[in-house]
Amino acid sequence: MMKPGAGPDVEEMRFSRLKAAYSSGGRRPADVVREVYRRIAARGEDGVWIHLESEDKLHARAQDLEARRADAGELPLYGVPFAVKDNIDVAGVPTTAACPEYAYTPDESAPCVNLLLEAGAIFIGKTNLDQFALGLVGVRSPYGVARNPFHPDYIPGGSSSGSAVAVAAGLVSFALGTDTAGSGRVPAGFNNIVGLKPSRGLVSARGVVPACRTLDCVSVFALEASDALCALDAMAAPDEDPYSRALPAGASLEMGDISPEGLKTGVPMAGQRDFLGDDEAQSAYERGIERISEMGAVVQEVNFSPFFEAAKLLYGGPWMAERLAAIEEFIGAKPEALHPVTRELIAGAARYSAVDAFRAFYRLEELKQEARIAWEDIDFMMIPTTPTIYKIEEVNADSVALNAYLGMYTNFVNLLDLCAVAVPNGFYANGLPIGMTLLAPAFREGFLCAAAEAFLAGAG
Amino acid sequence: MMKPGAGPDVEEMRFSRLKAAYSSGGRRPADVVREVYRRIAARGEDGVWIHLESEDKLHARAQDLEARRADAGELPLYGVPFAVKDNIDVAGVPTTAACPEYAYTPDESAPCVNLLLEAGAIFIGKTNLDQFALGLVGVRSPYGVARNPFHPDYIPGGSSSGSAVAVAAGLVSFALGTDTAGSGRVPAGFNNIVGLKPSRGLVSARGVVPACRTLDCVSVFALEASDALCALDAMAAPDEDPYSRALPAGASLEMGDISPEGLKTGVPMAGQRDFLGDDEAQSAYERGIERISEMGAVVQEVNFSPFFEAAKLLYGGPWMAERLAAIEEFIGAKPEALHPVTRELIAGAARYSAVDAFRAFYRLEELKQEARIAWEDIDFMMIPTTPTIYKIEEVNADSVALNAYLGMYTNFVNLLDLCAVAVPNGFYANGLPIGMTLLAPAFREGFLCAAAEAFLAGAG
Repeated sequence: MMKPGAGPDVEEMRFSRLKAAYSSGGRRPADVVREVYRRIAARGEDGVWIHLESEDKLHARAQDLEARRADAGELPLYGVPFAVKDNIDVAGVPTTAACPEYAYTPDESAPCVNLLLEAGAIFIGKTNLDQFALGLVGVRSPYGVARNPFHPDYIPGGSSSGSAVAVAAGLVSFALGTDTAGSGRVPAGFNNIVGLKPSRGLVSARGVVPACRTLDCVSVFALEASDALCALDAMAAPDEDPYSRALPAGASLEMGDISPEGLKTGVPMAGQRDFLGDDEAQSAYERGIERISEMGAVVQEVNFSPFFEAAKLLYGGPWMAERLAAIEEFIGAKPEALHPVTRELIAGAARYSAVDAFRAFYRLEELKQEARIAWEDIDFMMIPTTPTIYKIEEVNADSVALNAYLGMYTNFVNLLDLCAVAVPNGFYANGLPIGMTLLAPAFREGFLCAAAEAFLAGAG
Repeated sequence: MMKPGAGPDVEEMRFSRLKAAYSSGGRRPADVVREVYRRIAARGEDGVWIHLESEDKLHARAQDLEARRADAGELPLYGVPFAVKDNIDVAGVPTTAACPEYAYTPDESAPCVNLLLEAGAIFIGKTNLDQFALGLVGVRSPYGVARNPFHPDYIPGGSSSGSAVAVAAGLVSFALGTDTAGSGRVPAGFNNIVGLKPSRGLVSARGVVPACRTLDCVSVFALEASDALCALDAMAAPDEDPYSRALPAGASLEMGDISPEGLKTGVPMAGQRDFLGDDEAQSAYERGIERISEMGAVVQEVNFSPFFEAAKLLYGGPWMAERLAAIEEFIGAKPEALHPVTRELIAGAARYSAVDAFRAFYRLEELKQEARIAWEDIDFMMIPTTPTIYKIEEVNADSVALNAYLGMYTNFVNLLDLCAVAVPNGFYANGLPIGMTLLAPAFREGFLCAAAEAFLAGAG
């Protein structure tokens, strides 16, 4: 089984490799910037970028970092190139949310972007997405489809499609996504990389175009769980965003050194595992569970019904009204500016009443209580990232239904206040990657990333 | 200044007095039952009761307790008579919610009632309320108006009107209310007794007719804060009600022995204190603040704007839809069964969309954050229970507006996840009582009741 990433070019972008190269003096920020530019150019029109910083600007940033080389040890992301999903503000760069008529140019960067820059990272550009971050497919954008590096006929996953491809193709070391329903995990799965979806509120969502404000999370794509955690650590800070939350006393983002030995790993009961007939995906999942079990973990079956039901609440219920609340004025004024599928879904949310909303909250509260019971007996869960993968043309033919299938194992995670890390878990015969997702209750990111690294190490 | 209660008859009903009488053998449960029955009969038609247990049943209960006299020490509520607001289930007794056509007879008691019975308390009857617990006035009921013991022309306060009057008139030692907007505090203020509104979820709301399920609390009326806390302690237990919450690790319902010395007491800024022109109420409030200050507390002004704004959200926004969700089928089938004001208010909630609901949540979240800042500098708050009091005929003439005024200092408390205890704070020249409310963040009931007792002790 391959490690995440797709070749030596990609390997070079791991934080540890960059750090070693900078320390030894073998590379300088300007070299990395040059190489990033070369790689982006080499891929040509790949649907990844909505905005690319100019080479001049990047070299100025490289020079600035060069001048601070003595401080590199205090800058955890010194010289690390990153991309930003284009629904997150970067000062002076248009935020489009993949809707050109919606675009605005913010004066300030989102706090999470500022924190990355302060930590020494190099901002390369803004990436493509399913319009307004609605979708898990990556094809609902006027900027084209970010090309899946493993197979051009298949979807890259969404909504953070460009960010995931940028990391998988070795164009940057990490990239910011957002994740409301699974947008930070599904594309990780389809691109053989790591997707860390932190606990709600741990990273401020200020400066992010809202999807569902009560659920939206900024997420990180990277080549290793430790890299994603390092970027998260730089961004995690309480903020004036009223949905931001501080790490509780006693919790930490340190990645401890854990052994799978004895870890209680929850998995859906055998009869509940649904791959929509995709036998390769099913085999990969079962092999992954076997592997963690051989490593000494105790695999425990969990009744997955409350999780599946919560997943259905997200799009089959009033949370869609949050998306309408976010852009109601715009959609009213310029309905034709939206992708037709996006428009239909968001405008349709006007039918939900406040009574519908509260009824859904009541049901969610019951499901939360059932889910809590499941968590009492396990340390983390391992579930498929998606049940299967689709071709671009399949999704274009039946966008809403196939999109809904893809969220089966992701949509409940923010509703139930969990954190998640999606990791590679093998390949289809045709070379496409398959994903595995680890879940834990909120604020267990450090533990979860350690468990993910242990699992990946076991892949040999 | 008088202590809570209105004479020696009432004094006898304090837990400590009952306990002493039982211990010395001076009284037995049957004596108390007989005396309660005598007092209820003596008041005649007072609008307090919707259901009274038969004398036979009460004597059977007294005999049962008599037989367990040796265990009295282990029963914290041994022989203590109590009333239950008629929106809380007691097995075999109709629950009307003050709407006869809505009534049903439950097979099981609400868990909170069962816990009180297990602790040795004697259930006397079910009390009158503003229909479906909607109102702070106590006049919206087909069962009449519970007569205010201090002045029959004035409202008893609501919605838990009967429960408050039952305690104030010495008919029971404590009574259960419910409190969504202030129903457990306003009637305490208008009846010169203590009203403890616990943290949301600390007492299970299962077996309670829902008002706003996300906010509803079971509350306690008593003659002393320590009595209310003792009843709460018996009822506080996690439950299958998904909104129930366990006391967090480290929190306790013990009433510590605190001194006001140095306690930081938040009060609204002078310019923000609103008594709607009621000078007597204002003077009583200022004297109360002076008193706690003379006792050594540090009085600190707090910007009350976020609290007032949150208060307005409760009735001016989509939370009304929770009340509609609770009885939508019934109100659709039998609209004429409702009190006209109640019907108008609840049916009107159909106009709120899910978008409205989420917008209100977003605003509330911002207000919560502002309120949290206020709490950083203070130990508790002292605010008026109500700005003023009204005559029954005044309320009947303009029910919605005057009701809204009464909630100015109460409506925000559950939205902002606080606990509260309303206590007596002097009298009007005409003999009507005036209330003071102490507030603290959730799960600080023990501390809050201790502060309340200290404040009351200072009244001399």
